[in-house]
Amino acid sequence: MKKAVVLLSGGLDSSTVTAIAHHEGYEIHCLSFNYGQRNVAEIAAARRVVSFFKIPNHYIVDIDLGKIGGSALTDDIKVPKNRDQKSNIKNDIPVTYVPARNTIFLSYALAWAEVLTTDTIFIGVNVMDYSGYPDCRREYIKAFEKMANLATRAGVTGETTIKIQTPLINLSKAQIIKQGNSLGFDYSLTLSCYDPDADGKACGSCDSCIQRKKGFLKAGVKDPTRYQKKNRIATNNISI
Amino acid sequence: MKKAVVLLSGGLDSSTVTAIAHHEGYEIHCLSFNYGQRNVAEIAAARRVVSFFKIPNHYIVDIDLGKIGGSALTDDIKVPKNRDQKSNIKNDIPVTYVPARNTIFLSYALAWAEVLTTDTIFIGVNVMDYSGYPDCRREYIKAFEKMANLATRAGVTGETTIKIQTPLINLSKAQIIKQGNSLGFDYSLTLSCYDPDADGKACGSCDSCIQRKKGFLKAGVKDPTRYQKKNRIATNNISI
Repeated sequence: MKKAVVLLSGGLDSSTVTAIAHHEGYEIHCLSFNYGQRNVAEIAAARRVVSFFKIPNHYIVDIDLGKIGGSALTDDIKVPKNRDQKSNIKNDIPVTYVPARNTIFLSYALAWAEVLTTDTIFIGVNVMDYSGYPDCRREYIKAFEKMANLATRAGVTGETTIKIQTPLINLSKAQIIKQGNSLGFDYSLTLSCYDPDADGKACGSCDSCIQRKKGFLKAGVKDPTRYQKKNRIATNNISI
Repeated sequence: MKKAVVLLSGGLDSSTVTAIAHHEGYEIHCLSFNYGQRNVAEIAAARRVVSFFKIPNHYIVDIDLGKIGGSALTDDIKVPKNRDQKSNIKNDIPVTYVPARNTIFLSYALAWAEVLTTDTIFIGVNVMDYSGYPDCRREYIKAFEKMANLATRAGVTGETTIKIQTPLINLSKAQIIKQGNSLGFDYSLTLSCYDPDADGKACGSCDSCIQRKKGFLKAGVKDPTRYQKKNRIATNNISI
């Protein structure tokens, strides 16, 4: 059985990637990261997804990105709410950007892939919904892949060639949701919100929540997200 | 004052790099990694070096590479002793190789560099003493640098270009020691051994100890290393 390391945050994208890798018949080794209080609810979502697919290998790495700081996802910077999505595209890197996050995550995945002697790493980046994160772009993934093949035994012996699989790279949020839905995945297990409450309910108004809501609307799939009470009305009023 | 992130393990190479960056007038931000019991003595050495140069910023990141496993430096694999150094060159990757270690270390350095808004990262890799570690080669460093510039704000805005400084890349162990010595650095503070005792004394017979001993002999610099008692005689008998 072919093995793969799958980066799983517990969000919509990485959970869909897990569904795809599962559908493709990989023996999945899920890798999640615990980088402080902000993503405790995400980790819980990742565990639900792992349980849904009955994945036996789930490794949660504790990392202290928080001490390095520099982002609304790890620091006490206020997560922006209800803002115009168009202003958040292209060159405007959002405050929720975590420095070198995907590089750190992929580096751990690379280490694990090497130990498992597999050449396959899945990550849920995509360029269509690219909202200013430099490490979600295709050219970045290609550069990481090249570096990875020079960094490892594989690069020296030529036994294997590390491949970073990005099945969502060209998909919109709606297309991602449609794909996961067609594979029978239950999105109520996932959490995309940058600012969930203690119960893991989504705020409904951060960039991530807004993109997710629009995705469900556009995909024509019922949004199963558990929203905080105050945002339930707003949820129904959003336009695509 | 120009800032730099310096990867400091507490070994001979990275300590010399710290001496060089200090000599070049950088405001140094030292980054060390605590990846389990095996390197507790290394961390102590790193702290001594930081103290020697009066560096105010030393960040020790706890990482659990041990759980990923796959190496004599993190697992309970026996560190090879007194072996022929020639068999350990080129394509024979030693058991002490830690999967993707430099990639993980450089990724954290990249994150910190971005937060500090500096473009300079120092790492003490070198190709002359290259003993089978794929992530110590020049082509690897170049590929990491390229990836780093696509991974970060710098890559998107073009404000800065990340540079991975490798001042030791073409130096032999003896040349490294001579350089550090000429800068007034005290090598008794450092620890290179893969298998130190509880007191931080070197075994004198692992690959790293043997290379280090030969370096001091060849450089004509008195070896200040604190060896474990049983290896003191062997130390005097080593040939270059």
